[in-house]
Amino acid sequence: MQATPTPALRVGIAGLGRLGQRHAAALAFHTPHCKLVAACSPVEAERALARDQLGVASIYNDLDSLLQDDNVDAVVLVTPTNLHADQTIAALKAGKHVFVEKPLALNVPDCERVLAEAEQHPALVAMVGFVRRFDPSYLAAQAAVAAGEIGKPFLVRSQTCDQNDPEGFFVKFAPSSGGIFMDCSVHDIDLARWMLGRPKALRAFATGTIALHPGLAACGDVDNGLAVVEFEGGAKAVLYASRTMAHGHETSTEVIGTAGKLLVGEHAAANRVVTSDQHGVRHAVLKDFYERFESAFAAEMKAFVAACRGESPLTLTLSDALEATRIGLAITRSLGSGMPEAV
Amino acid sequence: MQATPTPALRVGIAGLGRLGQRHAAALAFHTPHCKLVAACSPVEAERALARDQLGVASIYNDLDSLLQDDNVDAVVLVTPTNLHADQTIAALKAGKHVFVEKPLALNVPDCERVLAEAEQHPALVAMVGFVRRFDPSYLAAQAAVAAGEIGKPFLVRSQTCDQNDPEGFFVKFAPSSGGIFMDCSVHDIDLARWMLGRPKALRAFATGTIALHPGLAACGDVDNGLAVVEFEGGAKAVLYASRTMAHGHETSTEVIGTAGKLLVGEHAAANRVVTSDQHGVRHAVLKDFYERFESAFAAEMKAFVAACRGESPLTLTLSDALEATRIGLAITRSLGSGMPEAV
Amino acid sequence: MQATPTPALRVGIAGLGRLGQRHAAALAFHTPHCKLVAACSPVEAERALARDQLGVASIYNDLDSLLQDDNVDAVVLVTPTNLHADQTIAALKAGKHVFVEKPLALNVPDCERVLAEAEQHPALVAMVGFVRRFDPSYLAAQAAVAAGEIGKPFLVRSQTCDQNDPEGFFVKFAPSSGGIFMDCSVHDIDLARWMLGRPKALRAFATGTIALHPGLAACGDVDNGLAVVEFEGGAKAVLYASRTMAHGHETSTEVIGTAGKLLVGEHAAANRVVTSDQHGVRHAVLKDFYERFESAFAAEMKAFVAACRGESPLTLTLSDALEATRIGLAITRSLGSGMPEAV
Amino acid sequence: MQATPTPALRVGIAGLGRLGQRHAAALAFHTPHCKLVAACSPVEAERALARDQLGVASIYNDLDSLLQDDNVDAVVLVTPTNLHADQTIAALKAGKHVFVEKPLALNVPDCERVLAEAEQHPALVAMVGFVRRFDPSYLAAQAAVAAGEIGKPFLVRSQTCDQNDPEGFFVKFAPSSGGIFMDCSVHDIDLARWMLGRPKALRAFATGTIALHPGLAACGDVDNGLAVVEFEGGAKAVLYASRTMAHGHETSTEVIGTAGKLLVGEHAAANRVVTSDQHGVRHAVLKDFYERFESAFAAEMKAFVAACRGESPLTLTLSDALEATRIGLAITRSLGSGMPEAV
Repeated sequence: MQATPTPALRVGIAGLGRLGQRHAAALAFHTPHCKLVAACSPVEAERALARDQLGVASIYNDLDSLLQDDNVDAVVLVTPTNLHADQTIAALKAGKHVFVEKPLALNVPDCERVLAEAEQHPALVAMVGFVRRFDPSYLAAQAAVAAGEIGKPFLVRSQTCDQNDPEGFFVKFAPSSGGIFMDCSVHDIDLARWMLGRPKALRAFATGTIALHPGLAACGDVDNGLAVVEFEGGAKAVLYASRTMAHGHETSTEVIGTAGKLLVGEHAAANRVVTSDQHGVRHAVLKDFYERFESAFAAEMKAFVAACRGESPLTLTLSDALEATRIGLAITRSLGSGMPEAV
Repeated sequence: MQATPTPALRVGIAGLGRLGQRHAAALAFHTPHCKLVAACSPVEAERALARDQLGVASIYNDLDSLLQDDNVDAVVLVTPTNLHADQTIAALKAGKHVFVEKPLALNVPDCERVLAEAEQHPALVAMVGFVRRFDPSYLAAQAAVAAGEIGKPFLVRSQTCDQNDPEGFFVKFAPSSGGIFMDCSVHDIDLARWMLGRPKALRAFATGTIALHPGLAACGDVDNGLAVVEFEGGAKAVLYASRTMAHGHETSTEVIGTAGKLLVGEHAAANRVVTSDQHGVRHAVLKDFYERFESAFAAEMKAFVAACRGESPLTLTLSDALEATRIGLAITRSLGSGMPEAV
Repeated sequence: MQATPTPALRVGIAGLGRLGQRHAAALAFHTPHCKLVAACSPVEAERALARDQLGVASIYNDLDSLLQDDNVDAVVLVTPTNLHADQTIAALKAGKHVFVEKPLALNVPDCERVLAEAEQHPALVAMVGFVRRFDPSYLAAQAAVAAGEIGKPFLVRSQTCDQNDPEGFFVKFAPSSGGIFMDCSVHDIDLARWMLGRPKALRAFATGTIALHPGLAACGDVDNGLAVVEFEGGAKAVLYASRTMAHGHETSTEVIGTAGKLLVGEHAAANRVVTSDQHGVRHAVLKDFYERFESAFAAEMKAFVAACRGESPLTLTLSDALEATRIGLAITRSLGSGMPEAV
Repeated sequence: MQATPTPALRVGIAGLGRLGQRHAAALAFHTPHCKLVAACSPVEAERALARDQLGVASIYNDLDSLLQDDNVDAVVLVTPTNLHADQTIAALKAGKHVFVEKPLALNVPDCERVLAEAEQHPALVAMVGFVRRFDPSYLAAQAAVAAGEIGKPFLVRSQTCDQNDPEGFFVKFAPSSGGIFMDCSVHDIDLARWMLGRPKALRAFATGTIALHPGLAACGDVDNGLAVVEFEGGAKAVLYASRTMAHGHETSTEVIGTAGKLLVGEHAAANRVVTSDQHGVRHAVLKDFYERFESAFAAEMKAFVAACRGESPLTLTLSDALEATRIGLAITRSLGSGMPEAV
């Protein structure tokens, strides 16, 4: 029906760790109008995987080489957080559309550098991976809020709670993760702003406790954190992040308005099966964020490709990513100081 | 506010087994405008209980003696099913209001004898214990149906499922219980008629299986039974009765209409607690029918007392009890013959 | 079975407003081993109700007269909060057991005066109406926590959310209610302490907003309040109180431990009916706290009577009531100052 | 990692109606190791769609031409039911793997002809589209049953209930659909056999009613049908099919065993959002079977491709399809005769 269809977007991916592999498979097999043509990784096993299992034609050891590949229209960065800002800037300078995993950066100046660079390239898409915005349930909830179905929203309660890893693997990464709020709650912060209509955040207060992983104390982190954010106009957000759930991964968000409320994701059913037996009436629980957001990750890549191909603009902006970082940092400061901190 | 309040109803109870004790305690302590003044039982321990724990003044060994007590206005019969009809008739002849536990009888002629006697005593209340009609949830559902909220109801699916008793205690009583349908489904039959507006039942088909209690085979009974009832006008009922649930007691009823459906009692939560742990997200389950219908049993006694005192008429009639028996018998015949049976 | 049964407890009630009437009916009709023998109220209509509908023998205009009645063993105070402390002390001085509605007082010195007086009367019961401790679901949850079923509890999230009253009736009472936290959250505070094993509270932080009732601004109150409480040992509580729910009354409490979590009361189903129709799959919601806690109010009166009769000691103490007030006051101060406040 | 990877399977599709289009899009964009290389349809608009939107290279007017295309390894038949048997046979004779939508045929001899032909081609895959076997929830349930988690299964209750179409579009197709049981319940029949371990069906009894669509009477069909199936060894199935649900599409299946039960799909939540407002606490409902089984349709195509490529054998056989038809026909006969019918 289209006389001259736009050619498929040619994508290169940087980073093929656990999440990177999933993005790569989505791009290779499950995203229409897109070809995964290039990949880079410093790890030989990851390069082999791209070549042999994903059929990627051009394999590089580093991002710079990939960025010089003229056959690449867009890059997907699934690299360590501390590299996000510089790599995004480099990709934009190379004339590539960029998708970068969240958070954009662990400090505000880095975010601002990216925004400044992106302004120089209005024709390029630059997108941060706030995947929950592409989840069907969150989309339905936000549409209902935007349509006024719950009146005026004034409170968001949101949590990101991971199943406990008895090995405490994440303790190792605590020093570089930015802390539990930057690592987990940044999603909830973005959701709160999205649901509340992007009000300006004024103050944040946080507290937390170490329930199971004393190793976190060394870097001032906790395994269960609570935060309150105050917005201009009176709206509030209450956030909870945990690394120690016994039952599985439970991400949930409640939006409370003057005419009703919406609750997304609670109880984290793994599927549509209810079992009745000697343990009661029960359902199995999602294991991790990837199982929860599998379809959202796929939709996110489709949205990125569609935006790069000029088919549908993004509502999610770099400015949203900057604000999420700004609020996350104020929360993190409050956890340290014990006092409310200005955002 | 009442110049001459009606005096409290003076009640005598016959039978102080498990259910009888509960009725007696309700009458003694939890039913306004009522005094439990008499009790009879052939069992000394039961008589002692009435005297010492319930403070009953007049204790008898048999019903006949109790019926001669002029201080008794009404009797509550919680006796073996095979005595129900004759005892109800005797109580009416003695000028007492009567409450009798379900089923009214295991055959139609016995039911008809009771109805005939009751017609001779229009001033006396005669009530059969279809307790579910006094349950707040069933009342809310029936009110919604009657108000047209689901359009025209045309299908009822109802189940009475008991937790498995590994001792198989009920197997002993199978020969005299009338079978699983007369013992358990008679409630569902009454509910179906109530919800559907008392249509005339035409045919019944039943089947069943023995899942765990082979001892039932000797008397032609099953531990899991299924029945379909066809009513005049096209409405249907599907009934399920089980003695072998692993998780607890689950009585549930669905009423399906042209504009919606109502489901009562499913999943049988024991309370308002949801647990999330290594077994999933789950709730505890009701143990037995008494735990499920505790408040309904209390409301039932209040309704009986109110009817005897002339305060509010009963919508539940002896004719309803007769029809429940008639349908239950056709189902039971079908279980034996393997063919649909006329009601 | 008891040679010389303890005689029934003779109770007098002070205050027959909405909640007072319910307590009175429970004492008159639904509480074994108890007689409602006296009542006092400054309101003629309330005295008439006690006389005519509850059959109370001795009716007084004021508490002092009732306290002089030698036929009264115990008093139930359902009077304005600002009278609680003095009336409780007067009742103890008169040698009566006392039940007083929550909160015990709106300041710490008043609570301490009551505790000091009670110490002088070790044989008398003095009980504050933290009714949720008598709710079957909260009891089951607390028993599970105490049994170690969720490991070590470290976080309580609890809310008291009332259906919005478009008339804003409560705005009138805001100046004397002590504010939303003292009026509503005091229950959640007590629950948190109970579930967490009574740790010492250290600090509280609160914020809030006015979503629908601007009239509250004049007295510094809000219609939606959030609070965080920090306890010694690291445990936390997050509280939410609202006067503006669209759907009904929803009181819920989550207790999170190292091996699981318990959630009590969420979604506030009014009954066991699920409706499937053009509005989706749905259930009706409880209208108010009394509908939610109807059986708990009855159990509470039974526990008071049992304690007065020496049958079973109370685990709920005046010291618990003092601590709830102390924490509630720190939260309320924080709402005003915007800063964390020491408890 | 594979030295010589198997080349992608080259698939041709016949029929591009609503369901055909979805299968085609899955094959074109979302199924790894598969190329949609050919399509046929008698409808020009469908051929245009294949060419322009799906990028299919070879477009034919009829199946015979497509079957002569040597570049096609496998065909997917999404054609009218009365063509299924002959087309499947033709495809097998042409040396193609075949996927055919359910039911395989509306009579037993046609099914048997297909089985006989398939026996002549042991190297070719022949698969019938019982899509529910590929749904993650049904797979989890069947795995639990097979692992003995509910003991010995003895009863399946299963329903396929469509949202009412006020236009009654399906009434037009009633004469050729085989009736409500062949059209809808055939899935439930297959599920019941799968869950119960493929016992031999002995008898079936059915009844039904017309609630909203009197036009069905002319061809002996109903818009709400009930059936009971008796299996060798005592297991039973109770089936319900409806065309008149007010709330949406609700397919659900319960498997009851001696140690527990599993319930799949009940309440048909459209997503993970719970709304609390003036209509109660509620969730939106799935609109139709495709929304319910979207991921299962994708998994089904993947399973077909994997089987054709020799990667993983199918557990679903043509014999299963034959038995489903055989049982469906006995149920349909019983609806007409009013008596139990031998399978």
